[in-house]
Amino acid sequence: MNAVDIIARKRDGKTLTDEEIKYFVDGYTRGDIPDYQASAWCMAVYLQGMTHEEATSLTLHMAHSGDTLDLHGIAPFVVDKHSTGGVGDKTTLVVAPLVAAHGLPVGKMSGRGLGFTGGTIDKLESIRGFHVSLSTEAFLAMLAEHGIVVSGQSADLAPADGKFYALRDVTATVSSMPLIAASIMSKKIASGADAIVLDVKVGRGAFMKTQADAEELALLMIEIGKGVGRQVATVIADMDQPLGNAVGNALEVKEAIEALHGA
Amino acid sequence: MNAVDIIARKRDGKTLTDEEIKYFVDGYTRGDIPDYQASAWCMAVYLQGMTHEEATSLTLHMAHSGDTLDLHGIAPFVVDKHSTGGVGDKTTLVVAPLVAAHGLPVGKMSGRGLGFTGGTIDKLESIRGFHVSLSTEAFLAMLAEHGIVVSGQSADLAPADGKFYALRDVTATVSSMPLIAASIMSKKIASGADAIVLDVKVGRGAFMKTQADAEELALLMIEIGKGVGRQVATVIADMDQPLGNAVGNALEVKEAIEALHGA
Repeated sequence: MNAVDIIARKRDGKTLTDEEIKYFVDGYTRGDIPDYQASAWCMAVYLQGMTHEEATSLTLHMAHSGDTLDLHGIAPFVVDKHSTGGVGDKTTLVVAPLVAAHGLPVGKMSGRGLGFTGGTIDKLESIRGFHVSLSTEAFLAMLAEHGIVVSGQSADLAPADGKFYALRDVTATVSSMPLIAASIMSKKIASGADAIVLDVKVGRGAFMKTQADAEELALLMIEIGKGVGRQVATVIADMDQPLGNAVGNALEVKEAIEALHGA
Repeated sequence: MNAVDIIARKRDGKTLTDEEIKYFVDGYTRGDIPDYQASAWCMAVYLQGMTHEEATSLTLHMAHSGDTLDLHGIAPFVVDKHSTGGVGDKTTLVVAPLVAAHGLPVGKMSGRGLGFTGGTIDKLESIRGFHVSLSTEAFLAMLAEHGIVVSGQSADLAPADGKFYALRDVTATVSSMPLIAASIMSKKIASGADAIVLDVKVGRGAFMKTQADAEELALLMIEIGKGVGRQVATVIADMDQPLGNAVGNALEVKEAIEALHGA
């Protein structure tokens, strides 16, 4: 097995085996496979696509490229949610406390802004003294104590995704359905949630421009979730206009707090 | 203009402008565009193809990425031939002297083996004392004095081709029609021949497996030649079996000399 043959098979529209995908992801994570081979492979994936089985393999091997969290010592069932992002999207700030208040532990690692959309971590940082980078121990302790924790992504979780994401960004291979799905799901799986609600945004202000694309991405992530034994539900939400009334990190936190107070 | 946009346009099957292709080739040759962007671009070209106009632009900018030879101070009209390669292909060793003997100056830079096929330079090196690497001055002097010179490729000619070729080899992007045509033609144009006969091999032992592929490559190289003002003729030759009776560097030189003696 070698990198060039795996690139060539995907280039020719073949279906890669689980072993081939593992070889490629592990090799790239270790640095044995250089960026220029990974980028040719990403472009081949972009243009030839992947089956659900291939995308599931890719997700699993990316998820296991670093540490994974097992939260079952803390709580029997932990939930997470993820949005593909949109202007004014402050859903996490409202939904996570609501769900936790009903007794379902929420352990969430959030991201920063992507393109023109703000990230939950950027928003939370507008709260004075809020710590966004927690050690694994602090993450687990907070989840055990409060039943809710939202922190930044640990660099030790799914490092393959970090490498692939940086490369895709500079090689015009970001907007590939299987690569997007594997990127999102690998981080969710590595961070240990049993159930994940995926909020797929669609419209002028979203990465997915059409309902058909949003449904395809949602379905793919559900299939990946099934393949790896996690419960996944998806919501397809309109992103033709900014969400809520406020846009801007501190303003969005304020709007979320007001919403939680019943405003 | 930037590299990511140019990659994205080719990824989406758009036709690149001459300016975009020049920007990409010049940037990659200088090292401003890294290997990982060039390999994503090559894969996009592989899968989306190029128009004849794009392939001609690519050829010209690769040809002008380094020095170019102007042989008109030596002879009014210089010819060259190139074969896409096959087992036992010793055509240059017979044809070049025959043509030169008829008074047409032959100035040829040859390559080494490619895949399973031997290169003319490897074959000539089996002659004790034969120098395959000539300075530009020595190349010109020999052409002026003898009307024939066959040497190795100068590293100063079409350096973009050298970089792209090495990258294509490790990213499964070698066998793309426009990339093959631009690679061959850029070197021929940089080395200054007025007329080029291209011997496109087809069959089990060739890179082109079908008559249709061989014809497509031949037509593309003729179009590129027209576009840059060189006379190009093509021969499509059978490569389902080794050529001639001898295979092996020294044996092939011996067979060629015997053929020239009328054996």
